[in-house]
Amino acid sequence: MKIAILGGDGFVGWPTTLHLSAQGHEVHVVDNLSRRWIDTELGVQSLTPMDSIQERCRIWRETSGRTIHFHLLDLAEEYERLKAWLAQERPDAIVHLAEQRAAPYSMKTDRHKVYTVRNNTNGTHNLLAAMVETGIDAHLVHLGTMGVYGYSSVGAPIPEGYLDVSIETPTGPKEQEILYPTRPGSVYHMTKSLDQILFQFYAQNDGLRITDLHQGIVWGTHTTETRLHEQLVNRFDYDGDYGTVLNRFLIQAAIGYPLTVHGTGGQTRAFIHIQDSVRCIELALGDAPKAGDRVRIFNQMTETHRVRDLAEMVAKLTEAHVAYLPNPRKEAAENELVVKNEQFLELGLEPTTLAEGLLEEVVEVARRFAHRIDRSRVPAVSAWTRELGAKVDRDPEGKALRSAS
Amino acid sequence: MKIAILGGDGFVGWPTTLHLSAQGHEVHVVDNLSRRWIDTELGVQSLTPMDSIQERCRIWRETSGRTIHFHLLDLAEEYERLKAWLAQERPDAIVHLAEQRAAPYSMKTDRHKVYTVRNNTNGTHNLLAAMVETGIDAHLVHLGTMGVYGYSSVGAPIPEGYLDVSIETPTGPKEQEILYPTRPGSVYHMTKSLDQILFQFYAQNDGLRITDLHQGIVWGTHTTETRLHEQLVNRFDYDGDYGTVLNRFLIQAAIGYPLTVHGTGGQTRAFIHIQDSVRCIELALGDAPKAGDRVRIFNQMTETHRVRDLAEMVAKLTEAHVAYLPNPRKEAAENELVVKNEQFLELGLEPTTLAEGLLEEVVEVARRFAHRIDRSRVPAVSAWTRELGAKVDRDPEGKALRSAS
Repeated sequence: MKIAILGGDGFVGWPTTLHLSAQGHEVHVVDNLSRRWIDTELGVQSLTPMDSIQERCRIWRETSGRTIHFHLLDLAEEYERLKAWLAQERPDAIVHLAEQRAAPYSMKTDRHKVYTVRNNTNGTHNLLAAMVETGIDAHLVHLGTMGVYGYSSVGAPIPEGYLDVSIETPTGPKEQEILYPTRPGSVYHMTKSLDQILFQFYAQNDGLRITDLHQGIVWGTHTTETRLHEQLVNRFDYDGDYGTVLNRFLIQAAIGYPLTVHGTGGQTRAFIHIQDSVRCIELALGDAPKAGDRVRIFNQMTETHRVRDLAEMVAKLTEAHVAYLPNPRKEAAENELVVKNEQFLELGLEPTTLAEGLLEEVVEVARRFAHRIDRSRVPAVSAWTRELGAKVDRDPEGKALRSAS
Repeated sequence: MKIAILGGDGFVGWPTTLHLSAQGHEVHVVDNLSRRWIDTELGVQSLTPMDSIQERCRIWRETSGRTIHFHLLDLAEEYERLKAWLAQERPDAIVHLAEQRAAPYSMKTDRHKVYTVRNNTNGTHNLLAAMVETGIDAHLVHLGTMGVYGYSSVGAPIPEGYLDVSIETPTGPKEQEILYPTRPGSVYHMTKSLDQILFQFYAQNDGLRITDLHQGIVWGTHTTETRLHEQLVNRFDYDGDYGTVLNRFLIQAAIGYPLTVHGTGGQTRAFIHIQDSVRCIELALGDAPKAGDRVRIFNQMTETHRVRDLAEMVAKLTEAHVAYLPNPRKEAAENELVVKNEQFLELGLEPTTLAEGLLEEVVEVARRFAHRIDRSRVPAVSAWTRELGAKVDRDPEGKALRSAS
């Protein structure tokens, strides 16, 4: 297949690109390299030394003999170029990972809120409009998030995208299938909720074939292909905006920094290893809906954990300390989370679980590149409201001395 | 109160502006005048001769002794100017009518789809972000549409915004209140569905006080205040993109043009007279939610009718012919529609119904300005898909000769 990977230079995008290229697909990375610009803006860098996308593609060609094509293009701001590119290349499938993906970054300031909506919503809508206009029959696989549902559910397992509801009518109750109701908790999560409405419309009106992957929190860093050469290494974010919770604990442990838990740590979240994330995208690509089908929605996660349990597990593994800090997010202090993921299991996903020793691997990466870490960028300081911002503890190292386990 | 009316130069905005000014409020129109640009783009003009907004404001001052302030500002493209304006003026209430409001225009070409999403979604989100950032405590009243729900409901009356659903959990069924599920049928309607998600988030995260008016199709043209001077007249759109169904029938009748019904005319829609629309906005302003409340949603309509019944009613009134044409929209051929509107009735709305002779008034306006009509702009030719576009009948006058009633 000819596959376009929008956002192919990112944390999930790069290993996906390598994996699909390794499988023999003709892979085109389309990216505006915004993630690199955001590193520059924030003054942080990937823990792992990361080459330019052009250099990465060259190394891959040397290593595998396969070519990855790279196109610098901004989905949100360059509609006409996007349309021209699609009309010329006519990909069979499009993997859409080109959205700003960090909740804390999306809540940093009003500028970041506005940017996230413009980038994510306009970018995704431009893509859909351009697919219709060019008449290409590509299967669109989009990376969404479990977070669209918020974390205040009534305790029922979250189904894969849809909910049957019974509505009282004058002639008795009638069943209706609706999109599972969303209640996003950040501007970032909100944009993924908007995406659902965009997809529903374009599938219904234009018969676009769309799969939306509602992903949990990704952990880990290596995949089979990124291990093939040190210059193919994936990016690894440790900062308070882009670092995801489990990876952050592992890196904090590696550098003797307290494991920073926000609030009680009673938040339950869904997780998936980066290798499984890549595999799920492959599985979704192989199982395309037909024109006229409703949007296919998968829950892309393999296990759920409470944040404080993860912290305690990492503390035990590494002898790190846990620091309980004020929560900069507006969210429930404690929640249950049960998630259905039968669809990917049926397609053959074999989950990589936390128990499998891969935690050690991440700690190893963290220790190897510990000298590249700026400790001042580790705390998560983006607050959901001004009031919460006033409570954020900017000195968790001091805090840890007071509350060390 | 100091009230900002975003989109105060438009079809609902102008009479709302006059009405709130007449009531003694300090009124500020904020508008980018895009609707006038779209007239220019489409090569059409309001049936009624419409002065510039500056001239309208001058006439109002002469007529009423009251001042309307006008600010040229683009919500979607000028975030920093918007924020500075809000910080300086600090309105007590904001009426937000500044969205592209025609479904056919939103489906015209891919450029129009992209424009509608950029204008409506970015504009609304910019406003919300700026309200939070400036810390103003204004009540936001937004004009949405009944059309967010689509027209394929199961036959139950559409409640005002929310639906109680029962979800099966391991410990038995639990009730949960959700936003009434949407299924928008055009890019325009889709943007209003996106707005709902934006409002839900900002009410929940930041305590913004928001009322969302889900309006039916507006008919009529005059209100008490627009009648005060001929240069205060409201705009009246008759073209295939911006003309709304009942007003279009009336104007078609006035110029001896066939009444163009799309499909079987079995579509049932909700309607409201422009005078009631203005009154509803006034009522909503007077009944603001508190910080922390969920978004208040009103169904802003007074009656429902089937399109073919309206056509037959107008035909009887005016001896016009009805022409049944292929439908350029992708929608159900026939639907039922029952809508709850208790909230506005309880607040004191006294509906202006079709039966009250106001139809004659619109016919009168249409006859008076019939010489300004370009008959070639009367057909609705914007098609929802390429296939539907191929079937659109661009010669309804010829068609009417064949199928005259």
